[in-house]
Amino acid sequence: MSEVFVNGLVCKNPKDIKPEDFFFPGLDKAGDTSKNPGSNVTLVNVEKIAGLNTLRISLARIDFAPNGGLNPPHTHPRATEILTVMEGTLYVGFVTSAPDFKLFSKVLNKGDVFVFPKGLIHFQFNIGAVPAVAFAGLSSQNPGLVTVAKAVFGSNPPISDDVLAKAFQLDKKTVDWLQAQFSN
Amino acid sequence: MSEVFVNGLVCKNPKDIKPEDFFFPGLDKAGDTSKNPGSNVTLVNVEKIAGLNTLRISLARIDFAPNGGLNPPHTHPRATEILTVMEGTLYVGFVTSAPDFKLFSKVLNKGDVFVFPKGLIHFQFNIGAVPAVAFAGLSSQNPGLVTVAKAVFGSNPPISDDVLAKAFQLDKKTVDWLQAQFSN
Amino acid sequence: MSEVFVNGLVCKNPKDIKPEDFFFPGLDKAGDTSKNPGSNVTLVNVEKIAGLNTLRISLARIDFAPNGGLNPPHTHPRATEILTVMEGTLYVGFVTSAPDFKLFSKVLNKGDVFVFPKGLIHFQFNIGAVPAVAFAGLSSQNPGLVTVAKAVFGSNPPISDDVLAKAFQLDKKTVDWLQAQFSN
Amino acid sequence: MSEVFVNGLVCKNPKDIKPEDFFFPGLDKAGDTSKNPGSNVTLVNVEKIAGLNTLRISLARIDFAPNGGLNPPHTHPRATEILTVMEGTLYVGFVTSAPDFKLFSKVLNKGDVFVFPKGLIHFQFNIGAVPAVAFAGLSSQNPGLVTVAKAVFGSNPPISDDVLAKAFQLDKKTVDWLQAQFSN
Amino acid sequence: MSEVFVNGLVCKNPKDIKPEDFFFPGLDKAGDTSKNPGSNVTLVNVEKIAGLNTLRISLARIDFAPNGGLNPPHTHPRATEILTVMEGTLYVGFVTSAPDFKLFSKVLNKGDVFVFPKGLIHFQFNIGAVPAVAFAGLSSQNPGLVTVAKAVFGSNPPISDDVLAKAFQLDKKTVDWLQAQFSN
Amino acid sequence: MSEVFVNGLVCKNPKDIKPEDFFFPGLDKAGDTSKNPGSNVTLVNVEKIAGLNTLRISLARIDFAPNGGLNPPHTHPRATEILTVMEGTLYVGFVTSAPDFKLFSKVLNKGDVFVFPKGLIHFQFNIGAVPAVAFAGLSSQNPGLVTVAKAVFGSNPPISDDVLAKAFQLDKKTVDWLQAQFSN
Repeated sequence: MSEVFVNGLVCKNPKDIKPEDFFFPGLDKAGDTSKNPGSNVTLVNVEKIAGLNTLRISLARIDFAPNGGLNPPHTHPRATEILTVMEGTLYVGFVTSAPDFKLFSKVLNKGDVFVFPKGLIHFQFNIGAVPAVAFAGLSSQNPGLVTVAKAVFGSNPPISDDVLAKAFQLDKKTVDWLQAQFSN
Repeated sequence: MSEVFVNGLVCKNPKDIKPEDFFFPGLDKAGDTSKNPGSNVTLVNVEKIAGLNTLRISLARIDFAPNGGLNPPHTHPRATEILTVMEGTLYVGFVTSAPDFKLFSKVLNKGDVFVFPKGLIHFQFNIGAVPAVAFAGLSSQNPGLVTVAKAVFGSNPPISDDVLAKAFQLDKKTVDWLQAQFSN
Repeated sequence: MSEVFVNGLVCKNPKDIKPEDFFFPGLDKAGDTSKNPGSNVTLVNVEKIAGLNTLRISLARIDFAPNGGLNPPHTHPRATEILTVMEGTLYVGFVTSAPDFKLFSKVLNKGDVFVFPKGLIHFQFNIGAVPAVAFAGLSSQNPGLVTVAKAVFGSNPPISDDVLAKAFQLDKKTVDWLQAQFSN
Repeated sequence: MSEVFVNGLVCKNPKDIKPEDFFFPGLDKAGDTSKNPGSNVTLVNVEKIAGLNTLRISLARIDFAPNGGLNPPHTHPRATEILTVMEGTLYVGFVTSAPDFKLFSKVLNKGDVFVFPKGLIHFQFNIGAVPAVAFAGLSSQNPGLVTVAKAVFGSNPPISDDVLAKAFQLDKKTVDWLQAQFSN
Repeated sequence: MSEVFVNGLVCKNPKDIKPEDFFFPGLDKAGDTSKNPGSNVTLVNVEKIAGLNTLRISLARIDFAPNGGLNPPHTHPRATEILTVMEGTLYVGFVTSAPDFKLFSKVLNKGDVFVFPKGLIHFQFNIGAVPAVAFAGLSSQNPGLVTVAKAVFGSNPPISDDVLAKAFQLDKKTVDWLQAQFSN
Repeated sequence: MSEVFVNGLVCKNPKDIKPEDFFFPGLDKAGDTSKNPGSNVTLVNVEKIAGLNTLRISLARIDFAPNGGLNPPHTHPRATEILTVMEGTLYVGFVTSAPDFKLFSKVLNKGDVFVFPKGLIHFQFNIGAVPAVAFAGLSSQNPGLVTVAKAVFGSNPPISDDVLAKAFQLDKKTVDWLQAQFSN
């Protein structure tokens, strides 16, 4: 018999399903935060746990380097995020949509919880001198990640620098320099 | 002006919203696990964070007493749960629906992740000698909690003991004893 | 050409669809209620009528033996149920979620309608001296069925009796006896 | 305190909810089928059972006069219908959408089940010499009803007869006569 | 590797997706309005743009012959429509569901916008002496189209003329004549 | 009686609804494109047409100044957009999510249609010497708009320049200059 797909993912024969299809190990391991901008996201989504298919949730661990480890401004096109700090001190925030573009920000310590609504630009920044760790639930089996600086200045192929110069009110030389920074 | 409600909850005027509407503190504090059956759930849902309204997610911390702290068999009528172990060793599982009633169980250690699909009966049990802690994302702003033993034997008013004796193949005396245990 | 699936079910070529794909016969036949606990559910879901795929509804006939035929406490993880009594007298109810665990119950006679909200534990019990019959609509093409006593005490493999003894405040001997009753 | 609304309906304080909020009596009573076209629908939706709010289902009893009682061509804008015949013999059908406009029809006897997919035009017609009765589940708390002949020829105010004459390829005199029939 | 389907449609390997999968040309071309009833709909749905799959929207251009070009009474079972007039003058309307059957109609000129709610019967009629053009967004990747006169009088096979005569209060001769008009 | 709200919006008494509640005029008027970056969006959403409430769609007209009028990189947190060009020549594109960040771009002429999936960063740029005009359907009654450059560099209050300097690999002086440009 040919394979059955749901949501474009292989759907196992119920007789062959095992506890392992609902399991993923290793979220106690810190991600590598040595590379710029100093954060690392370990996302447990439907690619990691096949049994999450159709169940609208995933889980993430986020590690931050001390003194400025940054999860840079980004959106999740398909998920709200609810995050709690395990270790360290994070300055976090999100920006509302037009016309207000209000920043809702907060310094979070261990045990604090914060919500980043679906589709809005948000960030987390380690303002402490020690590594920080956060865990987050996300309201999709496949939240998606749009890192703003990379999507805008590092897409493949690049967006025309005419567009970016005008959008960011930068001269083309600066845009080209930014594009060189964010390419691959 | 009168208040505006969405989902039956007061919806603030956007001008009056503050970062605190997306914030909740204290998830680093262990819950009291001294009472039977030895677990404690701190749920951060829309009652705790008003900004979660319409956003389909919540977060929970679950503490377990050492040597048998139990989050007893229960369901969430409106949510799938994805859980990770922070400290300790948990024996966890869920049971599928009719006709198979398969138990998918697993012993989880620190860093392990497990999924409990929406509406299915599941449990977590501390089989270690030290307190255990888990964090979980749930796919609803208001997941609901149906603790099986309490709902069946401790409802208010009680379900007829004729029904329960027949359903559980117990004599009425045992049912009445169970109802006395779970009422309060 | 290979088969096309929607929701993991074979999706027919529109040219080959027939009225029979929206049809199921025999719901006038009483189910066999001779076995304990004395009820029988005939569910017309997407497995019986392929044309229900994606349409979020199914229909059930429930027969009850006289003098105590019971549809024991159960949940539908994916459906609300709206039931009407055709013949007989049923004592029915559902229990709300934590922290109230309120029982909403009612004695239903012919022509009475009652609603069992999605995911909540409910039951129907024939308190009359004649067979009872009910029909119900369910808000899913595949509502799922979690019979509480069977899922808890009769799963395959069984849940650890340590868990069940603690959850139900029973000694292990009683648990083991219950597990023997519900296994098969 | 002011009232709370969900979906535009008053949402009771949970403390004041009673079993009666999930209950409706009298579906064993035949509707009056003496008026043209000889059918009567008793719909148990959220207006009849407040507890159905947000639960996506309703239930209907349909009575048909003998020898031609008709539930005329209509759609439910928000619901699929699954119907079973209790008494009598019905000729039923629905028509698919463009470009095929296929009629899927069937003669249904007692115990037969048929599905009418959401938004499609369908009808039920008593071709037997005795009264017929059917019960149906509908996949919305408020399915809506668009009776085609009445909506087209009997709206208030009327649709321009230029439009109707052209759409139905009828002369205006016939249209005006039809509008007179279906007005009020 | 075998093909992957989502919603019954082939889902491309992400590596093979091209800008053309989100593109469709030619919506500046007027459709042929020479045939009765004098309108032509060019619908850009998921059959035309594969990349629309799962995205819940489509776009249409509607052309109307001068002096009475008509988009006859119809419904979209899965979509609300929001339309704006580019050229010309349209008399448009929709009829609400039972029991009111209210007609909400309006004469629209260039730049006017009107909404036709999901599943309700609506029409657009060119009351000007020049060709009219409208563009519309529809809230489904596959809105479906039920043209009322064609579905009722021109289905394949035809609905019994007993049903139609009674439903429309016409004699059978008129029904048969209408069925001849709308067949094929 | 107090007002009824659905989705936080006043819900009119059905008896008081008029055709005007589904109507909005003036979409034939070009928006003012004289201000940088040379585009103007007229959005017909639920704030403009109350009857759109719950109906999941809106419509927009977008005007572009000649020679470089730009609708700068932005997202709609709650909507996919399907756009067609009425006049002029647009270079348009969207960037996929991590890890590929692929740019799907296309030069669109009159009559071309393009899709911008929900939540992804996209832009439209007038590369012609004449004004350009586009119309777009959006799959939400309230799509939301996150203009990337404004949200990142012009939020109120501003995001810490430490965060932005690191995220965009710019020195703080450039960030401060950008923040001055986008604040107001």
